[in-house]
Amino acid sequence: MKDKFYEYILNLQDRITSKLEAIDGTAKFREDLWKRAEGGGGRTRVIENGAVFEKGGVNISAVHGALPKSMQNYFGVKDADFFACGLSLVLHPKSPMIPTVHANWRYFEMYDEQGKIVDQWFGGGQDLTPYYLFDEDAAHFHTVCKKACDKYDSDFYPTYKKKCDDYFWNTHRNEARGVGGLFFDYCKATGKKSMHNWYDFVTEVGDSFLEAYVPIVEKRKNISFNEEQRAWQEIRRGRYVEFNLVHDKGTLFGLKTNGRIESILMSLPPHVQWRYDHHPEKGSEEERLLHILKKPKDWA
Amino acid sequence: MKDKFYEYILNLQDRITSKLEAIDGTAKFREDLWKRAEGGGGRTRVIENGAVFEKGGVNISAVHGALPKSMQNYFGVKDADFFACGLSLVLHPKSPMIPTVHANWRYFEMYDEQGKIVDQWFGGGQDLTPYYLFDEDAAHFHTVCKKACDKYDSDFYPTYKKKCDDYFWNTHRNEARGVGGLFFDYCKATGKKSMHNWYDFVTEVGDSFLEAYVPIVEKRKNISFNEEQRAWQEIRRGRYVEFNLVHDKGTLFGLKTNGRIESILMSLPPHVQWRYDHHPEKGSEEERLLHILKKPKDWA
Repeated sequence: MKDKFYEYILNLQDRITSKLEAIDGTAKFREDLWKRAEGGGGRTRVIENGAVFEKGGVNISAVHGALPKSMQNYFGVKDADFFACGLSLVLHPKSPMIPTVHANWRYFEMYDEQGKIVDQWFGGGQDLTPYYLFDEDAAHFHTVCKKACDKYDSDFYPTYKKKCDDYFWNTHRNEARGVGGLFFDYCKATGKKSMHNWYDFVTEVGDSFLEAYVPIVEKRKNISFNEEQRAWQEIRRGRYVEFNLVHDKGTLFGLKTNGRIESILMSLPPHVQWRYDHHPEKGSEEERLLHILKKPKDWA
Repeated sequence: MKDKFYEYILNLQDRITSKLEAIDGTAKFREDLWKRAEGGGGRTRVIENGAVFEKGGVNISAVHGALPKSMQNYFGVKDADFFACGLSLVLHPKSPMIPTVHANWRYFEMYDEQGKIVDQWFGGGQDLTPYYLFDEDAAHFHTVCKKACDKYDSDFYPTYKKKCDDYFWNTHRNEARGVGGLFFDYCKATGKKSMHNWYDFVTEVGDSFLEAYVPIVEKRKNISFNEEQRAWQEIRRGRYVEFNLVHDKGTLFGLKTNGRIESILMSLPPHVQWRYDHHPEKGSEEERLLHILKKPKDWA
């Protein structure tokens, strides 16, 4: 399973980065291969200063070895060996009319002393963070998510949509990071689902990413915007930074387990502002976004 | 003691904000009074878009009530009432030639069920974060810190200088946030020092702040700078954000104990950049700064 899923993400990374380069038309992904001292490594691909994408990363990694202490505490296990691989992506478009997107698909194995698998699971998801909200974009994104889910289980979309809203909640701001999408974790074999069923589901979601996001980019990339709208995007990006550095488990894990810092923090936006006690004008589009982020909505 | 120290910080806030307004010459501090639902409140003063100060806050607060659960765990105590007051300041100058400065002076009391003080202590410090390092500025700042310390105990400066270097270490970047200064905490009455002695020391450091920082501002505020230098400042401000959101106990405490978010996060810089895997040119001033931040130095 690990080889099969790793092959899948290697291939998905290629598909995603070539499609994004084609859309951008100007910038190319820079590739950095890196090794982890304790075992494994990754293939980081970052795009910067493109016509469409101001900054973004589409990274894969496959790491293994002894489970770090901090992860032992997190999972509530003792000394164990592990394998983890996944693809993580974040795209920060230049235009405030195009939403930021984040996605991640991952697979985890834990072993006993004889090297036998004692636990294994999939996780992942994809979510959208608009600066100017076109309701039809949120609806499109969620509809694609729902279609991928419904193929496997009609409970999946409502369950993982809610998990996404819960996870990407910026508690200290009492608002959502964005309009959500899917979030799932610890997808393990049970009476009803085998690991192969989960593989099919997770790769279905992975395959749906370009269909969920690309039409939104194409539709919004030629809308003009002014400096005030750009400033609003930078202020909202500040909330993105706050979520990732204060609350995001993946980021904090990486920072505390000696991950490759530049690959982890590629998720941070290129230009960000913090203004004291900023409030958008009453009745504005900016205020409407804040209002919607206060309470997760059904989009599909 | 609590009334005496609160009077002191009220007065110090006035002295500091009027001096900073005089230096800036353009912008004035905006004042926001706020109340904490559980008891107490604060007086936040923020300056933005000044000729010298791009963003800064000089805030006081005095809060009391039942010790929140998260603080009980932190201090290793059970249900208790507390009082805490302090002044916190962060100044982000517009020019990359002027360092960012942070300072904090605080006092804490804990009570038993009869309202008797069972524990009390002072804490605080001040530290400097340059973007372009003038060695003589770091030396001046530390010399003023040392002078304030030496008046009370010759061990204080080396002890609190080291605590500052340790505290403001950005572990995930393996570098210091800046060139340090002083950091002290849990300054309690012992055989050698009474709470009155600690009051004298902490207020001596508070009184030294303007002497430590203002001459640096005056000396550097008219140096011209270009866009590349400004970009470097914004990239380094990214590290400031990373420290405050990932590691700073005061910030995380505030975020997790329902503090006034806008008063806490006034510490975040106005314009910030994250570039993927940025490295300054070999032999440049920017590279020299990074080199110095890798290993705390004796400045006084």
